[in-house]
Amino acid sequence: MTSVPEDINTPEIMIDREVLGRNIERMAAAVQSKGLKLRPHVKSHKVPEIAALQLAAGAVGLTVATIGEAEVFVGRGATDIFIAYPLWVNPRQGQRLRLLSTRARIAVGTDSVEAAQALAANLGDAANDIEVLVEIDSGHHRSGVSPARALQVARAAAGAGLRVTGIFTFPGHSYAPGMPLKAAEQEQQALGEASELLASSGFHVARVSGGSTPTAFLTGTSSITEVRPGVYVFGDAQQLELERCTMEDIALTIAATVVSRHEGDDLTPRRVILDAGSKIIGGDRPAWATGFGRVMNHPRARITALSEHHATVVWPDGSDLPSLGELLRVIPNHVCVAINLVDEIALVSNGQVVDRWRVAARGRNN
Amino acid sequence: MTSVPEDINTPEIMIDREVLGRNIERMAAAVQSKGLKLRPHVKSHKVPEIAALQLAAGAVGLTVATIGEAEVFVGRGATDIFIAYPLWVNPRQGQRLRLLSTRARIAVGTDSVEAAQALAANLGDAANDIEVLVEIDSGHHRSGVSPARALQVARAAAGAGLRVTGIFTFPGHSYAPGMPLKAAEQEQQALGEASELLASSGFHVARVSGGSTPTAFLTGTSSITEVRPGVYVFGDAQQLELERCTMEDIALTIAATVVSRHEGDDLTPRRVILDAGSKIIGGDRPAWATGFGRVMNHPRARITALSEHHATVVWPDGSDLPSLGELLRVIPNHVCVAINLVDEIALVSNGQVVDRWRVAARGRNN
Repeated sequence: MTSVPEDINTPEIMIDREVLGRNIERMAAAVQSKGLKLRPHVKSHKVPEIAALQLAAGAVGLTVATIGEAEVFVGRGATDIFIAYPLWVNPRQGQRLRLLSTRARIAVGTDSVEAAQALAANLGDAANDIEVLVEIDSGHHRSGVSPARALQVARAAAGAGLRVTGIFTFPGHSYAPGMPLKAAEQEQQALGEASELLASSGFHVARVSGGSTPTAFLTGTSSITEVRPGVYVFGDAQQLELERCTMEDIALTIAATVVSRHEGDDLTPRRVILDAGSKIIGGDRPAWATGFGRVMNHPRARITALSEHHATVVWPDGSDLPSLGELLRVIPNHVCVAINLVDEIALVSNGQVVDRWRVAARGRNN
Repeated sequence: MTSVPEDINTPEIMIDREVLGRNIERMAAAVQSKGLKLRPHVKSHKVPEIAALQLAAGAVGLTVATIGEAEVFVGRGATDIFIAYPLWVNPRQGQRLRLLSTRARIAVGTDSVEAAQALAANLGDAANDIEVLVEIDSGHHRSGVSPARALQVARAAAGAGLRVTGIFTFPGHSYAPGMPLKAAEQEQQALGEASELLASSGFHVARVSGGSTPTAFLTGTSSITEVRPGVYVFGDAQQLELERCTMEDIALTIAATVVSRHEGDDLTPRRVILDAGSKIIGGDRPAWATGFGRVMNHPRARITALSEHHATVVWPDGSDLPSLGELLRVIPNHVCVAINLVDEIALVSNGQVVDRWRVAARGRNN
C-alpha cells in the first residue's frame, strides 16, 4: 500500500499510477467483453493525460459535461466528444460549438423542443455538423424525458435541421445502496422503449448511451451501444460503500497531516484533526454514507465532520490514536468534486512522486 | 434587485458591488462600536481587492487559514496576518513562515506541546519573530484545548522560544439554529477563563480572538479583543436560514440558466433544472438547511438535489414554472466553498459587469 512520499505538501491529492492503470484496463476489458463501447466521462478527472490512457485502452471517445471541458480536451487532441448535457445554447455558445465541430466529432444532448430549436437557431448553417442525442429520464428524475415525449423532441430537433443520431440517459439513482441493479434494469427498459419508438418512426438510432460507474458492469446489452462511467478511474468512498470497489482499487487519495489530537472524554470524542477539509476533499455526503470520506488502511475510522481546512476523524476504540504530525490518506466520498478543487495532482509510483499532472479542465463550468 | 447582466456566461459567480460595500461597512461599524477590533477571515473571499475594502473600513489586519493564503495576501501588501490554524510545521513550512515574517507581522495558532515544539524547531532563530496564539476549544470540539491545558501549551511554547501573545477560539457550533447566542456565551466563558489563567501565570495576554459571522454581533467584550468573521461580506443561504441576514444582504449569487423544465406528475416533482451544480455552488448542506442553497427572489423554491452540473429546483405550487432559458440567481449555502471553485468573479453594479476580480488565493490549501 502506497505511503505518502516525502515531497508531498499536505493536503495534496496523490494518484497511484499502478492502481489507475489497472482500473482503466479492467473497465475497458469488462465493457468490451459485453460488446459495448466505452465513452468514459472525463469530468471525473479533467486530466488530458488520463484521457489518453483511456483512449489507448480502447475507449471510442470521451464524454464531457460542458462546452468548456470539450474545448480543453479537443485542444489536447480529442477527436470524438459527447457533451452529455441538455444544453441551452445562446449565440455565444452556438459559436463555440461551431468552432468545436470543425475540429472534432461533437454530439450534444437535448431534452425539449425549445432547447432543440434554440440549438438549431444558434448553430445556423452548422446545425447538421453536430449530432444530437435526446435525453431520457430512466428513473433519476433530473433532466430527460419519457420515451413518448422523446419522440416529440426528436421530431422537433430533426424539423429544425439538427442531426438526431441517438438517445442517452444517466441512471443517477444507482448511487444508493441496493439501487445499482434496479437502476440498470430501468435504464435498459427506458432506453429500449425510446429506441424502438424512434426507430419505428423512421429515426436511425445509431447511439444508445447509458451507464455510470455503479451500473457499468450491469448494463443491459439488448439495445444499449455505449456506456459512460467516470469515477471508476480512481474509485472513491461512495463506490467503496456501494460495494463497487475495494480499498485496493482506490487510486486517488488526499495526503493529510494530523495537526490536532484528542484522547477525548465524557463530553468530547476521541479524535484526530487533519489539515484536509472540504476545500480539498469536497463536501459531498449522501445520507447513506458513513461519513465525509474514509481513511486508507483504517477502515473503522470515521470522518464525522468536515470544515474547510479540518477533517474531524473519530478513532475506533482499541486502536492507538495516530501521532501529531503523522501522515494519513483520505479517500474522498466523490472524486469528481475533489479533483476539481486542485490545479495539479501528484502521480505516485512505488512511494515516489514520478510526475505532476495539471487538472487542465478544472473549473470549466461553462 | 440586480438582474443577470447580458455578458454573464452561466454558471458564473456575480458579486453585487453595493451590497458588498454595505456589508463591509456595517460589520466594521458594529464591531468598532463595541470596542472590539475586526480581523476579518479572508478565506471567505480570497480576493485582495475585497481585503483592501475591509482594511479601508477599519479592519486591523487579516485572518487566513493557511500559509499559502498568507503568502498571497502579503504579496498583495497585507502587513498584519493571523493564520488562525493549529499548524503542524515541517522544515519547508518553517522556511515559508520565516520568509513571511520578514515582510509582515505574522501570528499563528497552536494547540499542543508537540506542535509548539515543532514550530519552534523549524523556525530556528526566527522563533521569536512570529507570534503564537493558543487555540481554545469553546464548545465546537474540533481543534483547541481546555483553558487548563492551554496554560501547559503556552508554557511549552514559551519554553521553546516562541512569543506567546494571546489565545483564540472558533465558536463553530454557532452554525445551527438556536445556537449563536449560546455559542457566543461559551466563547466568552472559555476565553475569559483561559485569559485569566495565562495572565495569572505571568503571560501578557494581549490578543484574545474570537468570533464568527453568526456570533459577531453577540460577542462578549469583557475579555475578547478582536473578532474574525468572514462570511458577512457576501452573506449566504446558511446565514439567511440562521436569520443572520436578509435576502437584501446577499452580495454573492451564482447566475444560472434553466436548461430543463418539468411540470411534474404523480411520480416526478414539478421542477426546473439549472446549469449550476456542486462544482460552482458547492455541496455543503447542514442537516438543518432547507436545501442545497436558495433562489434569489423565489423564497419558496427549494434546491432539493445537486449534481455536479445540475441543480434540481422544486417549484412552489401556485407560482409559474420559469421558462427554459430563463436566468435565475442561486444563493449558495456556504460562500467560502463556492468562491473557492472559480478563478474569477464578476463585479456587478446597476445591472452591469463593472469589473472582474481574480480569486487570487483560490486553492491555496497548504
